[in-house]
Amino acid sequence: MCPLALFAVFLGHMLFSLKASTLTHKPRVTLTDKDVSFLRIQLSGNNSHIELLQGPQDNIVYATGHKNLFRTNFHSSNTSRMSPVFREGCRSNDSTSPDCHYNITVLHMTKDPNQLFLCGTNGQQHTLCCYMNPSDDPFNCTPSKGIQYIGQHINEREPSLLIGSSGVEEFYTTHSGTEGSVGINKFGKNRIWTEMDSGTEQRYVSLVASEQREDRLQDRLYAFYIEKNRDPRLDSDLWVPRVAQVCMADRGGPKGYLQFRWTSKLSARLFCGDHDSRLSFTQLVDVNSVLAERWQDTRVYALFRNGWGMSAVCVYTVEDIDRIFNTSNFKGHTGSVPSPRPGECVKDSTKLPMEVLKMVDKVSEMEEWVTSRPLLVTHHYYHHICVDRVQGKGNVLFLSLGNGGIHKVLERDGHAFIIAELQPFNYRAHILSMMLHSSTGKLYVGSSRELVQIDLGSCEQYGAQCEDCVLARDPYCGWDGHHCTTATNNTIQDVENGNHQVCSNISRGVTASKVYFLRSSVGAADGIRVSQSSKYFLHCPTLSSHAEYSWRHHGNTTARPCISTGSEHQCLLLIESMGPEQQGTYSCVSEERGYHRTLVQYQLQLDSGATGLASHHLPCPGLGLVLTLVLTLLC
Amino acid sequence: MCPLALFAVFLGHMLFSLKASTLTHKPRVTLTDKDVSFLRIQLSGNNSHIELLQGPQDNIVYATGHKNLFRTNFHSSNTSRMSPVFREGCRSNDSTSPDCHYNITVLHMTKDPNQLFLCGTNGQQHTLCCYMNPSDDPFNCTPSKGIQYIGQHINEREPSLLIGSSGVEEFYTTHSGTEGSVGINKFGKNRIWTEMDSGTEQRYVSLVASEQREDRLQDRLYAFYIEKNRDPRLDSDLWVPRVAQVCMADRGGPKGYLQFRWTSKLSARLFCGDHDSRLSFTQLVDVNSVLAERWQDTRVYALFRNGWGMSAVCVYTVEDIDRIFNTSNFKGHTGSVPSPRPGECVKDSTKLPMEVLKMVDKVSEMEEWVTSRPLLVTHHYYHHICVDRVQGKGNVLFLSLGNGGIHKVLERDGHAFIIAELQPFNYRAHILSMMLHSSTGKLYVGSSRELVQIDLGSCEQYGAQCEDCVLARDPYCGWDGHHCTTATNNTIQDVENGNHQVCSNISRGVTASKVYFLRSSVGAADGIRVSQSSKYFLHCPTLSSHAEYSWRHHGNTTARPCISTGSEHQCLLLIESMGPEQQGTYSCVSEERGYHRTLVQYQLQLDSGATGLASHHLPCPGLGLVLTLVLTLLC
Repeated sequence: MCPLALFAVFLGHMLFSLKASTLTHKPRVTLTDKDVSFLRIQLSGNNSHIELLQGPQDNIVYATGHKNLFRTNFHSSNTSRMSPVFREGCRSNDSTSPDCHYNITVLHMTKDPNQLFLCGTNGQQHTLCCYMNPSDDPFNCTPSKGIQYIGQHINEREPSLLIGSSGVEEFYTTHSGTEGSVGINKFGKNRIWTEMDSGTEQRYVSLVASEQREDRLQDRLYAFYIEKNRDPRLDSDLWVPRVAQVCMADRGGPKGYLQFRWTSKLSARLFCGDHDSRLSFTQLVDVNSVLAERWQDTRVYALFRNGWGMSAVCVYTVEDIDRIFNTSNFKGHTGSVPSPRPGECVKDSTKLPMEVLKMVDKVSEMEEWVTSRPLLVTHHYYHHICVDRVQGKGNVLFLSLGNGGIHKVLERDGHAFIIAELQPFNYRAHILSMMLHSSTGKLYVGSSRELVQIDLGSCEQYGAQCEDCVLARDPYCGWDGHHCTTATNNTIQDVENGNHQVCSNISRGVTASKVYFLRSSVGAADGIRVSQSSKYFLHCPTLSSHAEYSWRHHGNTTARPCISTGSEHQCLLLIESMGPEQQGTYSCVSEERGYHRTLVQYQLQLDSGATGLASHHLPCPGLGLVLTLVLTLLC
Repeated sequence: MCPLALFAVFLGHMLFSLKASTLTHKPRVTLTDKDVSFLRIQLSGNNSHIELLQGPQDNIVYATGHKNLFRTNFHSSNTSRMSPVFREGCRSNDSTSPDCHYNITVLHMTKDPNQLFLCGTNGQQHTLCCYMNPSDDPFNCTPSKGIQYIGQHINEREPSLLIGSSGVEEFYTTHSGTEGSVGINKFGKNRIWTEMDSGTEQRYVSLVASEQREDRLQDRLYAFYIEKNRDPRLDSDLWVPRVAQVCMADRGGPKGYLQFRWTSKLSARLFCGDHDSRLSFTQLVDVNSVLAERWQDTRVYALFRNGWGMSAVCVYTVEDIDRIFNTSNFKGHTGSVPSPRPGECVKDSTKLPMEVLKMVDKVSEMEEWVTSRPLLVTHHYYHHICVDRVQGKGNVLFLSLGNGGIHKVLERDGHAFIIAELQPFNYRAHILSMMLHSSTGKLYVGSSRELVQIDLGSCEQYGAQCEDCVLARDPYCGWDGHHCTTATNNTIQDVENGNHQVCSNISRGVTASKVYFLRSSVGAADGIRVSQSSKYFLHCPTLSSHAEYSWRHHGNTTARPCISTGSEHQCLLLIESMGPEQQGTYSCVSEERGYHRTLVQYQLQLDSGATGLASHHLPCPGLGLVLTLVLTLLC
């Protein structure tokens, strides 16, 4: 049995209890730089970590790599490198001292387009943060006003947020590990630290702010993280995923109890899986949130893995999370719950009753879990997730693979459809960072040595017919009557079902192409001449892996299957020995979601010994005359 | 990226923490009835359940299917059908009464070659057991002496054992479910039932007898089963696998306490997985045991699945299991352990101290688990397991797939190697039963309508060279100097490493074949004539999926990759347009475990217009003369 078929059987089996809608599919198309033009900019050095930031102008992207800050301009295809110098904590001017070796660990835009906020961490694990005007080069970072020198180090990859207006920003970051201020830390006017030691290892994945609530006092921050399971039993998971909340208005407790500590921190277990079969994913890898009109509808997309090479995406709304924190029992707490309920945001947390403070300090975990069924389950390990909201059409997920590829996935009514696998790199790359710029429709991905800009509005690769464009189900694309192009209000598309009949509803004569095709074929008298008993083969391009391809000989209704050629995305017909019976018309036909079409057609003629002279009538005797009419193909 | 490559990446990822030796591999070869001759016998009816039993003669196999007992003879290729009539429990002679519709649920050989032991269960869930002489047809089953009419029903597929010598047999069976005598039941001289209700659902998978211990009193029976998890948490598994023990000498407790109940029953949790990563398999599916010289070394092969479409095989020795029952603390028991220790086998269990009986009744679960790391982990759902011990060469596992295929797997020093995928059916079949007859080297598999006999000593399919035979690593096969044939003491084989150099060590001139090959090729002056600009393709057969195949043109050292054709197990070379540069010798070469060889060779000549007349010199102008020397191929 061929490995492909096994793979299919396997996929069929695997999610015996997860909804059919979550069933994995292959990406419909695979797009390399032969199909789409990716803009690419080289980065100097071989960076093990890249942080991307959208600049003030559309084509400007900032990228950090070790000690460097790159400012890349995809419009002019150039990049400038800055190397900010961090002074504080550097005992001498001796650049060989480890104290002076700062790596850039944090980079944020501020409300002021001419100011970046960046932090560096040195070999002594000290962190220094500055506001920087990117036009200042060289730039010396000395402690800034507002957010000062941070005595504790900030790791690379540690989530952080800069919130507030210029000059009065508050800076939130997390600290992963087993010791030190493990948890959420806040710097700025009100500095708050978490407990000094965590009982078990925690790794922070993301910080999400839920701001602009009706009552601004209720603005909250959510931290998503995994915690090493305290349960030592062999049948328990190694890591458990969690979400924690804190109030942004939290000022800590009064002098003597929880001073400069969170008084509003609660945590709850996250669950991404199926209740009935008890199959779940526990390794939280990345999180991306999509803001909504109502803050409650803000969607948190959480990317999980399991130990078996699989990934899943679960979606939680802020409402889901809030409900658990507002209504669940407290784990292990049997007495009455004080008022205000622990975790409620209050104007002055230093004045909270001691009863509340004590409970927050001792029992901050919820009994109920924040649960969700996977939107998508695949047999890949994804590394990053970015989500874009395409107005009125659904959400699009970008999921990076371990080999440098990206899956572009449509989410629509809780169903997932893998539109494409994008391969922006020509080599096996590890994607270190991925950033979406929604307003310009650009996705940026960074490897250790390259930044690539992917234009999400590039649509011609899906094909030259309306049906190709609609079957692609790409919400960024639509049919404008002539081409598959960037979607507008006037383009035709059916993201929901990919129903190609939306094309025939317009007065455009879709079937005309078929008529034209048949006429052309009938008109052709000569075919490809193939010698008696010779081998020959015919090619058919395959763009969509969701289509079925087969060959028809003459008008013969019994189709011959394709010999598929794996990575070449070709469907072959092999003719083992040419003879009179092998003469005639061969058509390669495809079917996808009820859309049938002929992709190529060949006419074969026997060039037998008896008709050998006939071949001399042709200008180039051995050359076959290929009668192909490729209606729509892209390979 | 091609799905095949993804599959490989995926396999690479998946077991990040299980030993490399347990890593899944594709079956080295796939064998259908084009490659091997399978003997097949049709069964009448469309049986949903088949039970196989080796008859008294080598080629005789009994099979049960609903009401029928088939006696198939693979020597004479015929089958006879018997329909035993069960009388008891049938209130009238009215055959339309559901009381009279008995399905055969149990079939065993007895020590007397002319007697079968069989049970039928009727629509009223009553079971009747008989001794039957298979030459008696028609046969009326009325309650037999010794093992009587069984008031409780025995399900199809319920494990059972018939132990002892003729006339004084004891019959053990299990009862799965949530109510009734769930557990192990014993019929015969001493009838013992388990508790009437189980607190949770139990499904019994297998019964294994550990007999003939030095002290016969210590003979035990082990039941392998899964139990619905009592832990309601979402992150706990739905089913937990367990092993239970009972003493075969157990006669139950005294009158009034545990009378006719087990006084020696203990249970322990089974674990099949990796301690460090906490990845494990919990769905126990099938069990097969291999007896050893020392009873302690008897190996229990347990086939597990997980919820993600994967299977694993774990091996437990009877010693492993005994150690837990003999030394582990009792779960939830904190006081002292009475003497004799609960679970110890005693001469007269009716005289056990009340303290022991009470403890057995209340706390029969062990705190420690019987653990094992998987010998094999694959991305298939296996259904049945059979294991054969091949003296001095290792064990061979036969694992049935959902599509009618069987994986033949070598186990050697804790490593697994998938020798072959056997496909005995020409259609997509579900294997209902699988039985190994070790002494004759035959494997029997039953689908709903066919029984197939697979000759394990059939070896020619591996190839015509010593190296082919050795690379196959099939312990049933060896090289006798001329052919790959059934292994004997005098055949060459290297099951441990598959090292082909064991072939060159013998004075047999292995390299001679290569020399012969080259001479033959050099001697050939004419090649295949292909017209100018025509397409052409070359075939190369691929037997082993573990080998790498490539094409070489002339002596060109840069190899061209194969266009592999999935299920056809072919490697193609496509010539898009014939020209002068395409002329010359093409060799398809393979490499496996350091063994290089040329599989086929073709000579292509340009049949251009200018040399068109030359083709008339050949008797059949269009026919290419294929200069192939297939050293060893089978497809």
